[in-house]
Amino acid sequence: MSKTENEFIKIPNIEYTEDMRPVSHEAFDNIVQNRRSVRVYTEEKVPSDIVEKVLQWALLAPTSSNLQCWEFHWVKDPEKRKALVEALMNQPAARTSQELIVAVARLDTWKRVSKDMVKILEKDVRTPKSALMYYKKLVPLAYNQGPMGIFGLIKKVTTYGIGLFRPIPREPNSHADMRVWSVKTTALACQNIMMGFSAYGYDSCPMEGYDSARIKKILGLNRKSEVVMVISAGKRAKNGVYGPRLRMPQKEFIKIH
Amino acid sequence: MSKTENEFIKIPNIEYTEDMRPVSHEAFDNIVQNRRSVRVYTEEKVPSDIVEKVLQWALLAPTSSNLQCWEFHWVKDPEKRKALVEALMNQPAARTSQELIVAVARLDTWKRVSKDMVKILEKDVRTPKSALMYYKKLVPLAYNQGPMGIFGLIKKVTTYGIGLFRPIPREPNSHADMRVWSVKTTALACQNIMMGFSAYGYDSCPMEGYDSARIKKILGLNRKSEVVMVISAGKRAKNGVYGPRLRMPQKEFIKIH
Repeated sequence: MSKTENEFIKIPNIEYTEDMRPVSHEAFDNIVQNRRSVRVYTEEKVPSDIVEKVLQWALLAPTSSNLQCWEFHWVKDPEKRKALVEALMNQPAARTSQELIVAVARLDTWKRVSKDMVKILEKDVRTPKSALMYYKKLVPLAYNQGPMGIFGLIKKVTTYGIGLFRPIPREPNSHADMRVWSVKTTALACQNIMMGFSAYGYDSCPMEGYDSARIKKILGLNRKSEVVMVISAGKRAKNGVYGPRLRMPQKEFIKIH
Repeated sequence: MSKTENEFIKIPNIEYTEDMRPVSHEAFDNIVQNRRSVRVYTEEKVPSDIVEKVLQWALLAPTSSNLQCWEFHWVKDPEKRKALVEALMNQPAARTSQELIVAVARLDTWKRVSKDMVKILEKDVRTPKSALMYYKKLVPLAYNQGPMGIFGLIKKVTTYGIGLFRPIPREPNSHADMRVWSVKTTALACQNIMMGFSAYGYDSCPMEGYDSARIKKILGLNRKSEVVMVISAGKRAKNGVYGPRLRMPQKEFIKIH
């Protein structure tokens, strides 16, 4: 085991505690149960401060290595909204919605955030050595795939070799892995958005049936951006939910070892 | 616009309503604020029925086309747990945890679920035509990438051509897109797991630093499975959270159009 790895299995010598707030699992259950994918909304507006709060909750989801590789585009401009609804194939969940939020995963912003993390951690005397080392050395090594993905390929071969003898973290080592990585973190935040609307008594619908190329053009996104989903919001109409929730038997999905 | 597409922009003629439960955004805020990535846990056990409830909440997250391409592996067996902790590089968040859940995305189960959806929908007289058509025709077309991804490639070229003239849904049209697709849905459920533990006053940590090949072997997963993350759970020790939450300024991530 390398010195770096050794540093990470140690528990750092810090005492930091946070006040815990009172929680209610019944309250959470209600929020989960109320959340259905709503396809038709009423004309009732969603107050702006609720959308703002929900977006703030999105940013409090966990994020891989705290690299915050997400963006949330709240589309209010009527012209852009019109184009966005068209790019969403004019589906009822988009066209009858009061609000539209486009969740975007970024494959490039981890470099900026990583440097900012180093600056913040260097200022704090309590920062354990391992944390600084992580952002200075391991993050660039782990996430930089190099020109044409060549670093990734080298990592893939190296980790395969080492992996024959002992456990070793493998991904991400390709552009495809970076897409998976960034979309994964962004999706965690998306769930906070949908649950957040539900917590305020509003409805939402996650949509993936869209023209991603057109959405990227509408929002002026670069090539290192990936549209993860578009979330619509509003209050459900009487025919807003098309039917009861359909889930296959739990034993198909929950496996106990 | 094709007949099929036309069917999907129509609002079907159904009236289905659900009783709404009382919700509290303050309660949700507390659950969000308490959820921190916890690296060191106490020896306090998590009651089994809480883990079960949390896993049930996972299955109530939205799932793309309701194809439920997720699996949650709850590892209780001491031998398997030991191997899993090693595959997680022996990190404190794994080795001090009381429970470990491996979230897995499946690239193959959509075929089974899709057929089951047809069976369920055919039995219900209220099912709109478009829903049946969706699972019978569109789902196989959209998700089947064919041998060596050849169908996907054909779709990619075709949608590119059509896309020059009008909006058209583009993804998934490759194996890489299918990975993104299945991981995305699974991540939504993962967030329900972490928030669920928080709602019960327990802590969690999502981990991605692991040897995915070894985890797949431990759980006996096939080649069409992707380890999305491992979530540990327990009660935070005094030094369980390493420091205050660090998020870069909101304006870097929330964009208003």
